[in-house]
Amino acid sequence: MYGSIEAGGTKFVCGIGNENGEILEEITIPTTTPEETLSQVVEFFKGKEIEALGIGSFGPVDLNPDNPTYGFITTTPKKHWSNADLVGEMKKHFDVPIGFDTDVNAAALGEMEWGAARGLDSCLYMTVGTGIGVGAISEGRIVHGMLHPEMGHIRVRRHEEDAYEGGCPFHGDCLEGLAAGPAIEARWGQKGIELADKMEVWELEAFYIAQALVNYILVLSPKRLILGGGVMKQKHLFPLVREQVVKLLNGYIQHENILEKIDEYIVAPGLGDHAGLCGGIALAKKAAI
Amino acid sequence: MYGSIEAGGTKFVCGIGNENGEILEEITIPTTTPEETLSQVVEFFKGKEIEALGIGSFGPVDLNPDNPTYGFITTTPKKHWSNADLVGEMKKHFDVPIGFDTDVNAAALGEMEWGAARGLDSCLYMTVGTGIGVGAISEGRIVHGMLHPEMGHIRVRRHEEDAYEGGCPFHGDCLEGLAAGPAIEARWGQKGIELADKMEVWELEAFYIAQALVNYILVLSPKRLILGGGVMKQKHLFPLVREQVVKLLNGYIQHENILEKIDEYIVAPGLGDHAGLCGGIALAKKAAI
Repeated sequence: MYGSIEAGGTKFVCGIGNENGEILEEITIPTTTPEETLSQVVEFFKGKEIEALGIGSFGPVDLNPDNPTYGFITTTPKKHWSNADLVGEMKKHFDVPIGFDTDVNAAALGEMEWGAARGLDSCLYMTVGTGIGVGAISEGRIVHGMLHPEMGHIRVRRHEEDAYEGGCPFHGDCLEGLAAGPAIEARWGQKGIELADKMEVWELEAFYIAQALVNYILVLSPKRLILGGGVMKQKHLFPLVREQVVKLLNGYIQHENILEKIDEYIVAPGLGDHAGLCGGIALAKKAAI
Repeated sequence: MYGSIEAGGTKFVCGIGNENGEILEEITIPTTTPEETLSQVVEFFKGKEIEALGIGSFGPVDLNPDNPTYGFITTTPKKHWSNADLVGEMKKHFDVPIGFDTDVNAAALGEMEWGAARGLDSCLYMTVGTGIGVGAISEGRIVHGMLHPEMGHIRVRRHEEDAYEGGCPFHGDCLEGLAAGPAIEARWGQKGIELADKMEVWELEAFYIAQALVNYILVLSPKRLILGGGVMKQKHLFPLVREQVVKLLNGYIQHENILEKIDEYIVAPGLGDHAGLCGGIALAKKAAI
């Protein structure tokens, strides 16, 4: 059995799963302070006899095992959580291998193991919700580098009729600043879920998301793109996004995935809302090897 | 000894090098027809007793060893060269392992082995010339995917005072369409080299290149960015590009490479004009293992 923690800014979801990614038990714990939240996390796993633990966390996080702050959430604007030592705290209580990565990298890994990218060796997982996060796998390996990627903040072209200035504290009108849930609410004065039947909302949203996907395709060439998160629950977004991606690429990428099978190329998570939790199981499984 | 071919649209540069990336002999052959050019290439290597051969080629190329067209240049607009079987033609004459990749991936590998990214396990190599090509290494491996990346065609925001419509036949005003050598000439009516002292030319150029680099940093998080090609011979472009990159990231990437050491982070090729040829040697060396 493996343990998984999906560490989010609102809630921590913890679960126990087997090597097939089946979740046998799970619990949701609100994200308050590290002391309070993590002690409940420890309580959940105690006595569960897990072989290994996988943590997919909100960030930014330190993924470099050579650093003294490896396993920490670093400089988050989330109150109380700057410099929270997730891995260290778990190590204190559980003498098992611990895999650690970003929430979206974990979700990408989960989707590749058991979800919408099963059988492939590359994919990209994007979540569009309170923020925009993206994780990627290339040739079977999670893409890391100097730090972890922060693809949600790439620059996109503004729509000429979009007067909203963008809500990212760092970049103003980067992708996250223009297309995350709070941007939709700030621009239109209502939450996305209340705007479900307003086509202009989703056409503009697709305009931004598609630009980002095109850039990811050109940079990483992933074999599947998986879009999750609260905003993507608006299922009518998918055809709009697909259409824009094909239009923007304009025949440049000569591959059947784009030219003929775009419906199978840009898809919803195969694991539904469990991509992150299953991803933690996949991280644990890798850590146990 | 290893053989290397830098296959370009204007010329093929062939060389013999040792395991330290030292080029001992080289020759330049004009790119005319595959029959003519490749027979001269074969002639050069004949009797040279190479252990392995590495080819970095202009593209698009087929890099998937499972495909019948592996080792081909595929659908290039370059006359005569669509479906040219580079690897197959070399295999006919030389019974040695052959490494094959894009020209820019080869250059990135060469720069990591012996150039500006030596000792690192990730880097990005961008050439700005007749076109814009980009290759990347992540955790020691060349980034491939569904096809090879085509990062030179990512979308950037237009400068509001730039009236030039862009010259990319697929995307109009993508990065290559706005910032490659021919775009400079079309916009300003003179070649870049004749515009060396016109600051507005290079500020606009930096405006576009920096946007692309910011997106690459956010997507791939490479440990060094290496900029080569004819346009980057304008050395005053480097400080302009660095300044714009720092400004656009606006403190978001909390890493000393950006915050303090940008001069060492965005650099010229350590191998000068030999990045591609040395890259071929590196590909050969890998193929020989």
